[in-house]
Amino acid sequence: MTMIPEEISTSIQDAESVILLTHVHPDGDAVGSMLGCAGILKSLGKKVFCYLEEPVPYLYRFLPDCETVNSSLTELSSFVNENKNVIGISLDCGDCDRLGKNKDIFLRIEPFLVIDHHRSHKDFGMHRWVDPDRSSTGEMVYELALHLQAGISYNCAYNLYVAISTDTGSFRYDSTTSRTLRIAADLLDIGVCPDEISDYIHNNFTLERIRLLEMVLGTLSLHAYNQLAVIHVTGKMFEKSGALPEDVEGFVDFPRSITSVKIAAFVKEGKDGSISVSLRAKGEHDVAEIAKAFGGGGHRNAAGFSFTDKTAEQVHQIVTDELTRMFERSS
Amino acid sequence: MTMIPEEISTSIQDAESVILLTHVHPDGDAVGSMLGCAGILKSLGKKVFCYLEEPVPYLYRFLPDCETVNSSLTELSSFVNENKNVIGISLDCGDCDRLGKNKDIFLRIEPFLVIDHHRSHKDFGMHRWVDPDRSSTGEMVYELALHLQAGISYNCAYNLYVAISTDTGSFRYDSTTSRTLRIAADLLDIGVCPDEISDYIHNNFTLERIRLLEMVLGTLSLHAYNQLAVIHVTGKMFEKSGALPEDVEGFVDFPRSITSVKIAAFVKEGKDGSISVSLRAKGEHDVAEIAKAFGGGGHRNAAGFSFTDKTAEQVHQIVTDELTRMFERSS
Repeated sequence: MTMIPEEISTSIQDAESVILLTHVHPDGDAVGSMLGCAGILKSLGKKVFCYLEEPVPYLYRFLPDCETVNSSLTELSSFVNENKNVIGISLDCGDCDRLGKNKDIFLRIEPFLVIDHHRSHKDFGMHRWVDPDRSSTGEMVYELALHLQAGISYNCAYNLYVAISTDTGSFRYDSTTSRTLRIAADLLDIGVCPDEISDYIHNNFTLERIRLLEMVLGTLSLHAYNQLAVIHVTGKMFEKSGALPEDVEGFVDFPRSITSVKIAAFVKEGKDGSISVSLRAKGEHDVAEIAKAFGGGGHRNAAGFSFTDKTAEQVHQIVTDELTRMFERSS
Repeated sequence: MTMIPEEISTSIQDAESVILLTHVHPDGDAVGSMLGCAGILKSLGKKVFCYLEEPVPYLYRFLPDCETVNSSLTELSSFVNENKNVIGISLDCGDCDRLGKNKDIFLRIEPFLVIDHHRSHKDFGMHRWVDPDRSSTGEMVYELALHLQAGISYNCAYNLYVAISTDTGSFRYDSTTSRTLRIAADLLDIGVCPDEISDYIHNNFTLERIRLLEMVLGTLSLHAYNQLAVIHVTGKMFEKSGALPEDVEGFVDFPRSITSVKIAAFVKEGKDGSISVSLRAKGEHDVAEIAKAFGGGGHRNAAGFSFTDKTAEQVHQIVTDELTRMFERSS
């Protein structure tokens, strides 16, 4: 087992009450590791306040105890006033700016601990446990539980399993290690059913999403000897299908799934008419560099940038032209 | 560890040469467990002949050592004549009819061993290790290797990982146990990269497949208060898209992924104009019973049946009408 920084475990052991925070636009690892950590801390007799600026996204409302997540700053302030030895823990947040618009309030909590696995993590907080070799923050919270000799309830195991399985794409990403799989095995031994969780995550879509997918697949174009695939979605398609902005989650995986494709681009028209572009790379291609040239950023395999005053169709063409030229230069 | 029947391990230990067989239309578990088992037996100094009636499907040609699979009965017969103590092992085959058109030749091999995990397994062969609580035959072959104290090479681990991960839908199906995940962890420790294998399995599709998917999604209809979803594919769609019959693999998961859907049906027109229907159920619905009423069969969650002298559109309507009535009766 990895050594957990002593300041982290001592601070938690000494605390009577804990405020848990995670990043805005939370994903499965953010919500799952927060709720999992809350369960562990409660089993140790601590009072816990899970704060999230926005409501839990509908995709993750199936998580047990998710109704305990609170968005009220007034109630947060009462929690601080009514309890002693209050500490703060930020989970799965790689940058304090992503704690949301009230980050300055949170960062004043002392001690403020940080548990995170992002490779691009920008240090903040008083004590940090940052390990980019971990598949997920859920994995780290599980080991924190073992370290603190805390009980892991069924709900807690469920939340940590969601955290780990979503952040590893069902154990498919290269961040998945044998340790990840052994932790997942321990969680199954506590009673978690992988098929039940998978149904919530992978079979929980709307008809509108399928209708939108059909339209978006109709925009697919291939270029540069089929190494580049581009798709787009327009405001009109959202209107016609009745789908929501979050329904396009995962659409970029379709062009990416074509054998010959090295880079897939997904051009999205937002509600305000602005255009965002998501790039996904396979193999050695670095889309962070490409995104930078367009004024954006991201990771080597996944990056993005945005446009204003252009239509989705125009940006589809611009991205096609620029990336085709890039492939021609590099060939 | 589960007890492996003594006749199985003794027969293998005593053999000098082994013929490995699996079911026709082989999936990842069939090819992966066969190649994995071949590697294990070779590490024990045995001569091995992997027989398959048809060539390895293109989806699984990335498996290491897959070029050793042989479809020649003449060469199989030479192998029998040139070697001593030849035994046969059938892997992942639930019914001797699925050994293919030469099954009678194989079943004469003595001893003929059977290793399988199908719940619907129909006994055949001389000695059997059949365990329906296993996620995959790959999982059983791994434990056979431990039991026989055989070496597990990288190639062997790779093949067994493909077997296990494909047969559990990336560890999502309810057949996935903590033992499954711990075995997968052991295989990662041998050097297997889950993202590399996942790319071959999930990002190895053709443009033609995406074009066909778009057409098939256009046929989606929902019925019985959105509990029933039906899609179909016609010969014309195959023609227009240029896709192959195997490209529809996984299409039924799209209607199945809609939250409200309890039963998804996929109507497929074959090359000869015959129509086959795949049914997939979520939750408590039993599609094996429905398939039986249409003269077909299968499992509780996945079943099928076929039609002749009808078009795909007609069968789409028949299935819709019949299943809607069924939902009405049960409500």
